[in-house]
Amino acid sequence: MRESREARVIGVDLGGTNIKAAAITKTGQVVTKVEWATEADKGVEHVINRLQKIAYTVAEEAGWNWAEVTGMGIGLPGFLNFRTGVVEQAVNLGWKNTAIISVLSESMGIPVYFDNDANAAAIGEAWVGGGQGFDHVAVATIGTGIGGGFIINGHIVRGANGMVGEIGHLLMEREHGRLCNCGKHGCLETISSATAMLRSAREAVREGAQTTLSQFALDSLTTRDVIDAARLDDKVAYAIVKQAMETLGIALSHIGNTLNPQRIVIGGGVSKAGEIIFEFIRKGFEQGALPRVIEACQIVPAKLGNDAGVIGAAKLALEA
Amino acid sequence: MRESREARVIGVDLGGTNIKAAAITKTGQVVTKVEWATEADKGVEHVINRLQKIAYTVAEEAGWNWAEVTGMGIGLPGFLNFRTGVVEQAVNLGWKNTAIISVLSESMGIPVYFDNDANAAAIGEAWVGGGQGFDHVAVATIGTGIGGGFIINGHIVRGANGMVGEIGHLLMEREHGRLCNCGKHGCLETISSATAMLRSAREAVREGAQTTLSQFALDSLTTRDVIDAARLDDKVAYAIVKQAMETLGIALSHIGNTLNPQRIVIGGGVSKAGEIIFEFIRKGFEQGALPRVIEACQIVPAKLGNDAGVIGAAKLALEA
Repeated sequence: MRESREARVIGVDLGGTNIKAAAITKTGQVVTKVEWATEADKGVEHVINRLQKIAYTVAEEAGWNWAEVTGMGIGLPGFLNFRTGVVEQAVNLGWKNTAIISVLSESMGIPVYFDNDANAAAIGEAWVGGGQGFDHVAVATIGTGIGGGFIINGHIVRGANGMVGEIGHLLMEREHGRLCNCGKHGCLETISSATAMLRSAREAVREGAQTTLSQFALDSLTTRDVIDAARLDDKVAYAIVKQAMETLGIALSHIGNTLNPQRIVIGGGVSKAGEIIFEFIRKGFEQGALPRVIEACQIVPAKLGNDAGVIGAAKLALEA
Repeated sequence: MRESREARVIGVDLGGTNIKAAAITKTGQVVTKVEWATEADKGVEHVINRLQKIAYTVAEEAGWNWAEVTGMGIGLPGFLNFRTGVVEQAVNLGWKNTAIISVLSESMGIPVYFDNDANAAAIGEAWVGGGQGFDHVAVATIGTGIGGGFIINGHIVRGANGMVGEIGHLLMEREHGRLCNCGKHGCLETISSATAMLRSAREAVREGAQTTLSQFALDSLTTRDVIDAARLDDKVAYAIVKQAMETLGIALSHIGNTLNPQRIVIGGGVSKAGEIIFEFIRKGFEQGALPRVIEACQIVPAKLGNDAGVIGAAKLALEA
């Protein structure tokens, strides 16, 4: 039934701050979209009520009778037990061992599915975004941190305990690496994230490097300023962005030589900087990947932006 | 039918030098095993004939009527087209665009499947070897070179064009790395393979290092001698093996943080050296992997030795 041409699903992106929900067709089109505050501080039951209400609201706004809705998928930041439908832990929501699948599917009368938010976004991008049409897709998100997800043989990779795609913590600098939030030194995230590039720029300015960035107040300097300066041939900014993105490219070459994907999709804030960063990423990738791996794989920007999560969540309900 | 308790399959490991074939039960037990020279120099038709004959022979030796055989799987070193059943290229066999699946299945009257040899070995180890009972398994083979294969969500990872598991070419040394056979510098294989450790030992002896290895004629020195000396606390040999295996462990931590496997199975000649190398590998892994990744993943020795290939090949015919 869920495979029929009438399939109409709700995709939900549940974050610590906001809930986004969308009515989505079986071809991955967003019919309508709603965003509410999560109000996680009001407790689990409150949030579960809001999940129901936002789903009913978005269906109504799409002009769907609830009886026409065939399923709902939820992406959320946490460790999930797929066998039991329990959120084992979701720090941003303050949840621990929260059974949401059984509760929601019973009260709403439709099948409900979940996955973690990184997987949901990867599923979305592989379905109707930068990886559309391919069965072997890696998605890397470069923002404050660096994360990812993988579609292999057409299916999301779930792994042992929710730690798939932690590519921000690939150890890229064995000696003299910066301290990472995870407690290790030299993780990819400490070199190639937006935060890391900004930190490098601030350090350069503080050390008195000859750069146009020194005209900014250090507190108000952003990663975008650094990339803009690199684009305008500021040598210091250029070197910072080059080093960060080439190292990311080498990390992606590890994924290339390991999984031999057809597409690597780059999303997150940094990806919006455009060709300058893709050029460096590809250069690093080509340094590390084997020729046949390079030949088979294109590195492309994500297409769905913030919608990747709701779209991928909806896909969970379509393919189940 | 092939799922029935009567399932009896033939697994074949087709190499450039030898063909191994085994009669294998549906639980992965080897009933009987035969090994012949490949005689690849006599041409494609000759080898295809030998594949048929070795299969009939092994079935007969197992006491199986051919009518009882439900399928055959072949592992071979080459690039394969799974849609068409054609071996696109197999350098060691001298094959190019060789349609073996249709030819064999027609002439033998049973379904025939293939995969590349690294995947076949990984499937075998994941099925009834070091990864038995787990759905997320990485297999790494450390010998003259370094290769691997991945079982994800219970299925072998095939990738875009036969380049999955090329972990020997992860770029581990961005500067001053040794030249690799692939043309790049600093690949894992140039640091952590048996060949690389031997080379390091020879270099140390040549440079006059204080080591018991200097009592060997350099030409007759083997990797086993180097590991044995390390085990006997020869400081130079110890440092060489430690550096090689810790770097391997870090490369495996990339796989850990990326795919979050339940088991990493280490096979190949070097794995037979036992605990000394596993200790270093685990140390490197724990340096690079996140705590939850480490917690979920055991690094264990391969169990099937040279039989992994035939057993994994047989599995192809069982699960198809």
